[in-house]
Formats: sequence, C-alpha cells, structure tokens
Amino acid sequence: MNVKNSVLLGTLGRYSDRFHEFQPFKSLEDRLKTSAKIPRVHGVEPVYPQDIGHSGEQVELIQNADLPVSAVNVNVKGEAEFKYGSFTNPDQAVREKTVTYLKTAMDIAVDLGTNMVSVCPLIDGFDHAFQVDHSKQWQWFIEGLKGAAAHRDDVRISIEYKPFESRNHIIAPNMSTTLLACEQTGFKNVGVTMDVGHAISGGENPAAALALGHSMNRLFYVHFNDNDRRWDWDTLPGSVNLWETLETLYYVRKLNWSGWFAYDVFTRHGDPAEALDATFEIMENLNAFIDKIGMDTLQEMTETQQPAAAYRELIKAML
Amino acid sequence: MNVKNSVLLGTLGRYSDRFHEFQPFKSLEDRLKTSAKIPRVHGVEPVYPQDIGHSGEQVELIQNADLPVSAVNVNVKGEAEFKYGSFTNPDQAVREKTVTYLKTAMDIAVDLGTNMVSVCPLIDGFDHAFQVDHSKQWQWFIEGLKGAAAHRDDVRISIEYKPFESRNHIIAPNMSTTLLACEQTGFKNVGVTMDVGHAISGGENPAAALALGHSMNRLFYVHFNDNDRRWDWDTLPGSVNLWETLETLYYVRKLNWSGWFAYDVFTRHGDPAEALDATFEIMENLNAFIDKIGMDTLQEMTETQQPAAAYRELIKAML
Amino acid sequence: MNVKNSVLLGTLGRYSDRFHEFQPFKSLEDRLKTSAKIPRVHGVEPVYPQDIGHSGEQVELIQNADLPVSAVNVNVKGEAEFKYGSFTNPDQAVREKTVTYLKTAMDIAVDLGTNMVSVCPLIDGFDHAFQVDHSKQWQWFIEGLKGAAAHRDDVRISIEYKPFESRNHIIAPNMSTTLLACEQTGFKNVGVTMDVGHAISGGENPAAALALGHSMNRLFYVHFNDNDRRWDWDTLPGSVNLWETLETLYYVRKLNWSGWFAYDVFTRHGDPAEALDATFEIMENLNAFIDKIGMDTLQEMTETQQPAAAYRELIKAML
Amino acid sequence: MNVKNSVLLGTLGRYSDRFHEFQPFKSLEDRLKTSAKIPRVHGVEPVYPQDIGHSGEQVELIQNADLPVSAVNVNVKGEAEFKYGSFTNPDQAVREKTVTYLKTAMDIAVDLGTNMVSVCPLIDGFDHAFQVDHSKQWQWFIEGLKGAAAHRDDVRISIEYKPFESRNHIIAPNMSTTLLACEQTGFKNVGVTMDVGHAISGGENPAAALALGHSMNRLFYVHFNDNDRRWDWDTLPGSVNLWETLETLYYVRKLNWSGWFAYDVFTRHGDPAEALDATFEIMENLNAFIDKIGMDTLQEMTETQQPAAAYRELIKAML
Repeated sequence: MNVKNSVLLGTLGRYSDRFHEFQPFKSLEDRLKTSAKIPRVHGVEPVYPQDIGHSGEQVELIQNADLPVSAVNVNVKGEAEFKYGSFTNPDQAVREKTVTYLKTAMDIAVDLGTNMVSVCPLIDGFDHAFQVDHSKQWQWFIEGLKGAAAHRDDVRISIEYKPFESRNHIIAPNMSTTLLACEQTGFKNVGVTMDVGHAISGGENPAAALALGHSMNRLFYVHFNDNDRRWDWDTLPGSVNLWETLETLYYVRKLNWSGWFAYDVFTRHGDPAEALDATFEIMENLNAFIDKIGMDTLQEMTETQQPAAAYRELIKAML
Repeated sequence: MNVKNSVLLGTLGRYSDRFHEFQPFKSLEDRLKTSAKIPRVHGVEPVYPQDIGHSGEQVELIQNADLPVSAVNVNVKGEAEFKYGSFTNPDQAVREKTVTYLKTAMDIAVDLGTNMVSVCPLIDGFDHAFQVDHSKQWQWFIEGLKGAAAHRDDVRISIEYKPFESRNHIIAPNMSTTLLACEQTGFKNVGVTMDVGHAISGGENPAAALALGHSMNRLFYVHFNDNDRRWDWDTLPGSVNLWETLETLYYVRKLNWSGWFAYDVFTRHGDPAEALDATFEIMENLNAFIDKIGMDTLQEMTETQQPAAAYRELIKAML
Repeated sequence: MNVKNSVLLGTLGRYSDRFHEFQPFKSLEDRLKTSAKIPRVHGVEPVYPQDIGHSGEQVELIQNADLPVSAVNVNVKGEAEFKYGSFTNPDQAVREKTVTYLKTAMDIAVDLGTNMVSVCPLIDGFDHAFQVDHSKQWQWFIEGLKGAAAHRDDVRISIEYKPFESRNHIIAPNMSTTLLACEQTGFKNVGVTMDVGHAISGGENPAAALALGHSMNRLFYVHFNDNDRRWDWDTLPGSVNLWETLETLYYVRKLNWSGWFAYDVFTRHGDPAEALDATFEIMENLNAFIDKIGMDTLQEMTETQQPAAAYRELIKAML
Repeated sequence: MNVKNSVLLGTLGRYSDRFHEFQPFKSLEDRLKTSAKIPRVHGVEPVYPQDIGHSGEQVELIQNADLPVSAVNVNVKGEAEFKYGSFTNPDQAVREKTVTYLKTAMDIAVDLGTNMVSVCPLIDGFDHAFQVDHSKQWQWFIEGLKGAAAHRDDVRISIEYKPFESRNHIIAPNMSTTLLACEQTGFKNVGVTMDVGHAISGGENPAAALALGHSMNRLFYVHFNDNDRRWDWDTLPGSVNLWETLETLYYVRKLNWSGWFAYDVFTRHGDPAEALDATFEIMENLNAFIDKIGMDTLQEMTETQQPAAAYRELIKAML
C-alpha cells in the first residue's frame, strides 16, 4: 500500500465545543515541532489563511519544518464574513473572495511542494426550510469551483464533503453530490476528500463511497476517524465502526489507490500528539490484521455473500 | 400547478410488518374500484408483475377501470430469485431477468397509455461490511439500466431511490447517487422518482433534492408521504415535517414542474382509502396555505435568510 | 461466566419484511429438532400462543424435545385484536385479554420448567402526535403488569424494551423507562429483557444500560444481536458494534450476572441454523478475546480514561 | 395557562461552534438590558458562576435589573477542572466541588427570589466503550444529587437531561433515566428540566415525556426549542417538529401544569434578541392555534386514534 500519513495541523491545536475547551491553543511552530516527532509521520496539512497567513507570511516557517506538505487546507468558513456562506454567499463579493482564497492557496501549495488544496465548505448550505434558494446555491457552488479550478491545472482542488455542521445541511453532504459537482465543473483537477467519519455520520458505507469516487478518478484524499453515526465526534479510527474501517482500508489496497491519508482525530481526554501516535499505530495494525486474514479470503467473502460465515471468520481471526 | 394525483395500488392492499398484519389482502379489481371513488384522484400505478401478470394478463382489467395510468411500477425485489439482488445479483441470469422485467413493463406501459415505468431497487445493495464487491455492484447497476433504457426511447425509466429497507444500504440511496447513475447510462430516458419520505429518512432536504434533480432534467416523478427521519413509516404528508413538505411543494410550483404525484401512504389504523382521501385533501390544503402566505413572500424569505422572521410569519399564518 | 445459550424459536422460522420473504415457514417440530443440533445450545424459548397453542396444546411436544426452556415468550402483538395495542388498548376487554395471556403463559412456563416469561410490547405506544392519551397509556401499562405479576410470585415477567417497530414510539422504549415501570408495579418479579440491538438502535450504550438494570436487581434476561443504530436489523453479535458488544459481555462477567442469553439473529442470506451456530461461536470467541486482553486490563482502561491508549491496546490485541 | 417566559441569559451572548463564531460576547449588563426590552418577557435565568460570580459578586446587578429570576443555572461543565466530569469525576475533590457549586447556587437562588436551580450535567458520562465504570458513575451521580438536595429543602434542583454533547453519552440522557435518578435520591426537591429539543434529538416524544415527569410530580421546568432529530441545533420552537411542539403545549394545558418556560434558542443568522422576540410570539400563536382547533377536538383525536382524520383536520385548520 503506497500511502503516507499526514498530520492535520489543526488537530494539535485548540479543541473546544460549545461548552468546554478540551485542548488549549498551540502555536504553529509548536505544532510543527510536535508533528515531526510523531512516529510514522510523513507530512503535514497547514490551514490557509489561519496557519499560513493571508499572504503566505508563514510559508518559510512551514518549509523549514522539513516535513512534506500533503495539501493546503483552505478555510472558507471561519472568518466573520463567511457567516452566510462562502461559495454560496448571497453577496457576490464574498463568493469572489472565496475563489480568491482558493487561488491564493493553490499558488502557495506549489510553493510548499504539493499539488493539492483541500476545502470543506461547512458553512455553505442551510439550516431551515425556506431559508435559501436551492437552485441558486448549487449554481453558485459550481461557478466557484470552476473559477478556482481554471486558475491552474497543475493543482488539484479536493472537496471534503460532510452532511452537517456548521450548517444543518451542507451543500456537499455526501460522496455522490460531490462527484456530481466535480463533473459539472468540467475540470479534471476537481475531486473529493473522503473523510471516513463524515461518510459514517451521513449514513454512507465508506468503502462503497470510496470505490465510487475512485471509479471516476476523483478520489484525491482520504481522512480517517470514527464516530457513532450521530455526530462527527472525530474519534480514533476503528474505535466504533471497526469492520467498516477495515473494509475501507481493504478497498484502498484492492483498488491500489495511492496518496495521502490524514486524520481528523480530536481527543478530549489525553494529549493530542499521543492520540495521533496511537492513530498511526492503529492504522498499521488494522493493515496487519488484513494480512492476518488475507486479501483473498476477504475477496472471497464478497463473492460468497454469507454474513454468518464471514463474521464467524473475522471474529475468530482476533484470537 | 399542473400536477395529477395517482394511487399506488399497493397502498390499498395488504400492509404487514414483521409483527402484525395491519391491512388485509384486497384483489386488484377491488383496489381499482376503490381508487376510482376517491375524490381528487386522476390515475393509478399498478405493479408488474404482481398486479399486471407476467405476460400482462390483467392489462385489460386495468384498462377497463377507466383510470389513467401514471406509470407501471416494476417490482424486482419481491420474488424469491431476487433474494441476492436484481440489478446487482451476482448471478448473471438474474441480472438479465431484471432487464427483461423492465423491458416487458415498458411495453406494457405503452399498452396502458403511459410513457413511464418506475423501479425501486430495494434489494440491490448490501447489509454488512465485506458482503459485496462495491465496484462490481455499481457496474452491474449501470449496465442493467442501460440495457433497459436502450429498449425503447419513448418510455422513461424512473428510479426510486431509498436509503435502506430491504437492504441496510441500497445501491441508489439518495438523489445524487441516482442522478450519477442516470448520467452514467448516457440515456435521457433514465430519471428519478423522488419519494419525499425516502429523502427525509435519508437525511436529505427534499426541496433541495428536488431542485437538483429538476436542474438535470431528470426529475420524472414525485411521491409524497412523511416520517420521523428514523424509518420510512409512510405516514400522511405533512404529519411530521410540515415545513419541509411545504417547501417541497413550493419548489414544484416555483420550478414549474409538471407531472404525477403519487403517495406511499400506508395507514396502520383506519381505512386505507380514507387515508388516501385525507392525503389528497391535505395536499390541496397545503397548496392553499402556500397561497395564503404568497409565493413572493416565501421567495423573499429565501433571499433575506432570517429564520426568526420567517418562522414568526409562517406560524402566524396558521391563525 | 455462568450463562447459557437459548434459541428463540422464531429465529428459525419465517422471516419476511414488507418486500421480501427471506426465510420460509418451518414447523415447531422442525425448529425444535434443528435447535437441538446446534453446537453450544442449552435451551429454547417458545412463543405463546403461536408455538405453544392458546391452551398449551403443544406443551408436550416441546417437553419431548428434551431441551430446557429459558422462558416463554408471550406474543401480545401479532393477533388482529391487538391492532390498537395490548396493554394500552383503549378497549378494556383487550387489556384484560393481555393480562390473561400473561397469566396463562406464566402457568405454562412452570409446566415447561422455567420461572420466566418474556414480553415485548411492540404494539403499545403510538405513531403520531395527538394519537393517544399518554397519561392513560402509562397507567394502563402499569395496571396490566401489576395484574399479571400478582398472579404468581414464583414466575418472573421480563419486559423486553424497544424504541420503535411496530409503533413509531413504543411504551417501553429504553432501559430506564422499563425500570420505572417495574418499580411502579411494586412487584419484585417484574424485570427487564435487555436486547442489545434494541439498546443500540435506541441510542443507548448497552453496557451502561445493563449495569443500571442489574443494580436494581431487575436484569432478568439478555438478548444479543447487532445493527447499525438506524433500525433493528437483528444481525450477528459484533458484526457492527464490536467494542460495545464486547463491553457488554465484559460487564456481564464483571458484575457476575448469571442467567440465559438469547439471540434475535435473523439472517437474510444463508441458513438460519448456521447463523445461530456462528452466533454461539462468535460469543465464545468474544469471551476468549476478553481473556486475551485480560479483565484487569479492561478495568484499568475504565479507571485511567485515556481513549487513545485504550484503543491502541484493543486493536493491537487483534493481531 | 399559568406559564411565564424566561430568557436564558446565555442565549443573548456568544454563540460559537467548532468552526465559526456566530454571535459575539455580550456583557451581563447588556444582556439584562436587552432581556427587559423583549415583549412578553417575565424573567431571566442567569448562570452560576459565569454570570453571577463564584461568590455572587453580580447578584446585585441582577437584582437591579428588576426582572424576576426563573432559576439559577449551575454550570458544572465549563471550567477546566470539569474536563473528566463533575458529578461523575473520578477525583473525589471535583465531585465535592460540584456539590459545593450546587449548594452555593441554591443559596444565591434564594437571594435572587427564586426557589429553583437548574443543572445540565453535559460533561458527565462517556464517549467510548471501556472508558468509564458505569456502576460507579451512576452511584456518584446519585450521591452528588443527594448531597445537594439535603442542603435545603426550600430550593428545588432541576436536572436538565440531554442525550449527547459534550459527552457522546450523558449520564442523564432522557426523561426516564432522570426520573429514576430523582427517585433514587429519596428527595422531593429533585426534579427534571425538560428541554423539548433534547427530548426530540434523543428520540423521545416530548409530550409523552412531559406527561410522565408530571405524573411523578417531578416536572419542574420546561425549555422550548427545536431541531431535526440529529443534533441539538437549538432552533425556534415549531420550526421543524410543529405537531410535536403543539402536542407538548397541549399537554401543558391539559395537565394544568404551571411554571416557567425558558428557551434554548440560538440563532446563527440575525439578532438573538429578535429571535427570542419571535420565539415568544410563536409560542403565543401556537397557543392560539390550539384554541382555533379546540382542546376538546384535540382530546377527541387521542380517543378515536384515527391519524388520517386527525391530520386532515389539523392541516385544514391552518387555512
């Protein structure tokens, strides 16, 4: 499996929900240093503009960290002007600003030695019936993506879908909607970041979603983490949906997909760097468990389609 | 609004879950007679082969009922040989039989005066991790649709998506996946039946889904009913998600969509025909409520994007 | 662990959902014979009146099978007269009939050598707002339980809770509501059947629910099976929520609970008896996996409360 | 209906999720002044210690606002030391501090002219299998409540239950568990705050939950707001589940419950005070809609149990 581990730099910083701050703020420098020390790490993903600076002020700091960059994460949701949306903001100026952010991040990505930006349009969508014009929202979303994709074809734009949060309904809630958007742009450099936890909280089977994205040559990036299907809790891979996590990994290998894995793992208890360390080891061990069973045996399960025999074998293999 | 009401003939027959039979079997003749008497009815949707007969033995009986046929519903899930799937059955012979069913139903549809068949692939998909080969399933699904669509271009095939039941994961779980499948067939006569209850139980906003399907010229048919987002309970339209039902109707009007509405409404208590009678009246009254507020006022809500003002007004309008 | 395996005789018979019959009808005699052959079986649970006969006509047949009876399952949901409820039916005659069923089943239980009846009030509750009088429903439910419990104190009545199906909201949807009902009866012989799948589909953590029921001396019976939290799919234990299933088993051991396990496992693909055979082996292997990690190690995890360390260790143990 | 409207002072302040700050910080003075200007307001609920000060430093400021206090909200989740829980913290010193907070707040409540404190134990519970000792957690929870309840019997402690957030599983997730806890304390001054949105996101029907709490004389407080059953979005009452909101109001009247209503309504778009203004008007109008239909007609619906007839009438009443 030709896959590398990236640290989403945000996962080492402040983590707070509406009621409690679980992890404190940490400087970019701290987070880069911490990342470098985690066993099995291959790279990092910094955030534009929060980590990088609006004009790339921190690019050199990141370059000096001597860790490959998997992608630049473009944050078009955090700042105040995005309150009513970024791609789908009713104000044209904000929509244009969103595209400018993407273009700038694409240029910076090249400076940072990567050919990918990732963007999660969490604030595009709606919360209520009768709140937005759905037809316009979709059109604006496609236009924004086109505007950015046309900027340069040597950098890929990877859209991270998610069903809800911050919006009750996000414009790109699942794999298929995101693939439709990609297709409608007409550009080959627009694709999908599949976050396994987002797939699960949206009711998808992540392996099936991954296979679909791959079949259309648009699976650009995979994020691992887990949750209980109710909310994107961002817990350790395999800590809830072990078999579906394993099946997803199995498909990565079966389809011979190569690229970066990253991990939206936020720990509320214990140290974030230790949580990432555990995450990387868990992924390695899940892979070893696949070997323990055997790729052929797993493939055979999908051909004989006998759940009782399959789970008898999967659980026996744990001993 | 240029929309007509169809009775899904199955809703007047036996209704049973795993534990209780709520409504008894009724003959086709009975169900046709009952349909004709329901106020505001414009047509019916019979099922192939259960209502119509494998070779169209009951076509004449249906024709004699003197009710327009909205579509022929092709059941590729009920019979024993579909246990492991229809479009996605690992056995090629069953996949071919599925296509044959569709073709036969398309021909019969023309005999019955309609240009549409509707098919809900409830038994295509999977229940467990490691149960099927997702890549093959998708490929088989597209191939089956192409095989049927090529049969004749004067009849439309409308795929009714649903997230789960009978399979834990159905191959066409939501609007976007179904639209992707339509696009991949390359045929214009393949489209979508949007069942509002399926949209809701799958976490979609039905109005947004409807607008997306319409924008791609693939929204062929709309079914109304409601549920509490946990399961496809098939209850009366507006009995749970009033505002989303209303918003869906509003989009039908705003987009000037025309065609058939049908109603997967199954009542566990009381008479099924009375439930459909109530359903048609509810739809008429929801429409009247839109007029009471005004299309322009509703459009304005989607432009100002102020939920507090919007719901203050929507609820005041109920008085 | 002093626990025995029972076969719910229904799991070997017909299994059908709204759209497909997955398993055919099988006679009681067949199902008893099949049960006796499943390795690791210790007993069976027959259904009153469907298996046993209204007046116990089949008691002898069951006795002759030479398998201990874990409990008599009292079905107060299947027959036509229970359409509007059993315990909570607005018609007093039906409520009385419900109590009579329970009393008769309690007497038959003794004849069959067990001191327990189990009852799952699936048809008691409601589907819609404004459909029932909630205060009356609760009162009737308690009265019915009291009426039955007073019949004889040497037989325990175990209420199997479930959040929904057949009703959208069942009167006893979770562990705590059921415990409240038990307490309000004032009888010690009223307790709870915890079905792990029902706990999961209702959003509970089954181990926490089990510990609560046990602390009040009202945990009478445990059913194992699994699902994806959306619906009671009745799949193999550990086939989805492996860690929660394991934690539940761990609590059974830690709390030194003893009694019968039964298994609502319904397979849609493959033979039901093989599915139960696999189920029993899976349970044995999950137990062995607990030993592989060690009870002390698991206890320590609950004391240190460090998820990253815990899941690192749990997953490493699979190799 | 003898019910008064309280402003939860937090709803006028900062509102931020993990990705965006939707509403800015506002001082207590500002929020008190704003509250006083909202039409139909009868009182406020300040938070201990964040609004009030650890030693009641702001009591006078609140008294001067000349608005009755519905209850003192005791926050035992926000501060750093509560990271591993408050009532259920493994560290005895933190558990004791939790009780001290409650006792202090009870005394301050009397100073502020109310006889109630409300507490929502959001950080008590767990996120993962094998993370906590469920038996100990429950015992600690009961002990903490007893310790506080014994402090003075002239002040009521109202526990606000919620299924999840901040913990994936909260110790008091639903009405029945909370009632069980109340009963186990043995104190009459321990009861329940029912937040309608929490009931809905936990799968409860709020009217049934309310009726159960009332029947045990433990329904102390009701919060209104709404959501789509997936997450506690805290949107306007009736903006999603109109009929269940209406049914809850109907039960308040039918059961002749009297007390305070408060409103966890957080608006992401538009002004918070306007959202509360709209909320109070919505509640008044929902009440008027009940009158439009008639209490007797609604009661009759619960007796005839015919959903088709009921929803036909409810929706017709909107015209």
